[in-house]
Amino acid sequence: MKTIQEGKAKILIPDLPEVVSSDMPVFYNPKMRVNRDLAVLGLEYLSRKLGRELMVADPLSASGIRGIRFLLETTGEVKVFANDINDKAFEIMKENFKLNGIPEDRYEIHKEDANFFLRKSWGFGFDYVDLDPFGSPVPFIESVALSMKRGGILSLTATDTAPLSGTYPDTCRRRYGARPLRNEFKHEVGLRILIKKVIELSAQHDIAMIPIFAYSHLHYFKLFFVKDRGAEVTNGLLDQFGYLLYCFNCMNREPVRDPFKLKERCPHCGFKFSLGGPMWLGKLWEEEFVEFLFREAQEREEVSKETKRILKLIKEESGVQTVGFYVVSKLCKKLGIPQQPDIKTAKKVFEGARTHFEGDGIRTELPHAEVLRRAESLK
Amino acid sequence: MKTIQEGKAKILIPDLPEVVSSDMPVFYNPKMRVNRDLAVLGLEYLSRKLGRELMVADPLSASGIRGIRFLLETTGEVKVFANDINDKAFEIMKENFKLNGIPEDRYEIHKEDANFFLRKSWGFGFDYVDLDPFGSPVPFIESVALSMKRGGILSLTATDTAPLSGTYPDTCRRRYGARPLRNEFKHEVGLRILIKKVIELSAQHDIAMIPIFAYSHLHYFKLFFVKDRGAEVTNGLLDQFGYLLYCFNCMNREPVRDPFKLKERCPHCGFKFSLGGPMWLGKLWEEEFVEFLFREAQEREEVSKETKRILKLIKEESGVQTVGFYVVSKLCKKLGIPQQPDIKTAKKVFEGARTHFEGDGIRTELPHAEVLRRAESLK
Repeated sequence: MKTIQEGKAKILIPDLPEVVSSDMPVFYNPKMRVNRDLAVLGLEYLSRKLGRELMVADPLSASGIRGIRFLLETTGEVKVFANDINDKAFEIMKENFKLNGIPEDRYEIHKEDANFFLRKSWGFGFDYVDLDPFGSPVPFIESVALSMKRGGILSLTATDTAPLSGTYPDTCRRRYGARPLRNEFKHEVGLRILIKKVIELSAQHDIAMIPIFAYSHLHYFKLFFVKDRGAEVTNGLLDQFGYLLYCFNCMNREPVRDPFKLKERCPHCGFKFSLGGPMWLGKLWEEEFVEFLFREAQEREEVSKETKRILKLIKEESGVQTVGFYVVSKLCKKLGIPQQPDIKTAKKVFEGARTHFEGDGIRTELPHAEVLRRAESLK
Repeated sequence: MKTIQEGKAKILIPDLPEVVSSDMPVFYNPKMRVNRDLAVLGLEYLSRKLGRELMVADPLSASGIRGIRFLLETTGEVKVFANDINDKAFEIMKENFKLNGIPEDRYEIHKEDANFFLRKSWGFGFDYVDLDPFGSPVPFIESVALSMKRGGILSLTATDTAPLSGTYPDTCRRRYGARPLRNEFKHEVGLRILIKKVIELSAQHDIAMIPIFAYSHLHYFKLFFVKDRGAEVTNGLLDQFGYLLYCFNCMNREPVRDPFKLKERCPHCGFKFSLGGPMWLGKLWEEEFVEFLFREAQEREEVSKETKRILKLIKEESGVQTVGFYVVSKLCKKLGIPQQPDIKTAKKVFEGARTHFEGDGIRTELPHAEVLRRAESLK
């Protein structure tokens, strides 16, 4: 056992193996620091917005680190309901809450199947749920949506990025009911497919899970949703589902909401289109939420530099909410441009914004033909 | 309280209201007789096939009638796990099992939320689950699929036929993720959308629920599925999803598996196509299963006449497994044919089979143009 510090929390963890692989189920994964920073900031947003005590669930707690950070780092009042069915986790979690001097009336620790734990809260209603499963979150989504209060926020992590991003398309089809696209913005496509799935599973119960934040890192996706309820608002989300046509020859991309409008050939180059989706074609970020996270992160010492850097990028990115982006190095290679412009120049040339998905990625609202024309002019 | 008899079972039920509406949740609904007859016959099929004691779940038992009939009418050995979260149901059920002299080691009676009840059986595995919820079965499908043994059979009832058959298309989209079609075979479309949903929810867990029987009655759908497991067999089911193009002008219908092949206009008459789906485009009946149900029903006195009649029709129908059928009266009206042929003549003219969905419905593998040509010849 050893003690580590993250944010304002100290936690006991069993000794780590020498190498922590990104796709290993681990008790405490230091690579998820940004993820937990974001979760803390998301909770702070809700706490300020509602201005009252919040009921917070951490249904797959492991070390308890998230819940402890929530309690120590939220300015408003919070009560945490931590849960883990694993005996060891259950015991260490208790230690960890004590170690951080959390008063006993501020938390409850449960040892149940996560779905049972969530569903038992019906009629009670959590304001904030942080779901961070190993692998796909699909088996928990309905329970989470049902367990939440209207206006509450879901902070969601998914580590099965490989199927969602096109490495295992058949798995994606079985688990998410959609076809991925293995192109230069495959992670964005993966996030959009995951958002579709979350909305779809909740819609079964007339629950509207409105996406307000999306972030992709090498081995995981992070999303925030606000819960609303009712047929009309749910229909409004489903209206924003559709397919994405992508041309692997000229990089043309066309979101299509009406299946009748799908076309087999790229109108730009005549190559056969590939089809991704169905997926969420709406916005990935609610600007007000992003703005808050960004500002709040800068003011906090306990938030990591990496988190601050990412939020700055996403703030820029949320100003140009296109479906897909261009990768400058790929554009240059395709078009035979010998000298790749730096990202500042590229932003000007394409009237775009940077994206957190790729170092040299650019979001632009210019039509595809115009992007190619401007790229050619760089020759 | 009064006692009624159904099949070989006697059961106590609270007094019925004067009028039992088809869409009222009732404790014992005499209109579901055919449904329960079919469930008994489906279990007999599995019992003969596996030739061993079967573990049977009735997660929403109400009066307990189904479980009691299973025990009294199956030739092989059966153990029934009945469950109802309602206090009154729980008490009356106990009475009813005793009233029928069922030995105590042949059944267990539980009082839990149906999803909890099912999920607790993980690692145990039911051979046969009869799920008959009030309304949509969607909230229970995953728990059922997970609770079953490979090779087991699900006997499923759904009473929310209105959304599935096009009366509430937006509800259908939210709950089932598909567009219904309010045409002359709207109930078949509804069944195919429901099948898609069951397959989709199970596929999330690499479980393949293979449809082997479909039946539609005024206010409910009845389906049987065999459970299999694994990526390959599940992919094979998903390959059979697709859209259905339907022309409300000339009644043309075209199943389309590849979304790129969707076309906006009916090639026959030029009218705008309507789009249904995604839905299951594969077979609705496994012939061997239908044949067994049909034969077995004829031999049993306790099976209702109506059940026997329906199974005879479905046996005929399962010989011509088209997507959609024609309704002779509608064809005649559309084409201005003054004298509608009787069903025997219609079968000959269109080289088709009758369908249980409509008294004057005909399934035929003739191309649409040929159907219209032959109908014209009746003038």
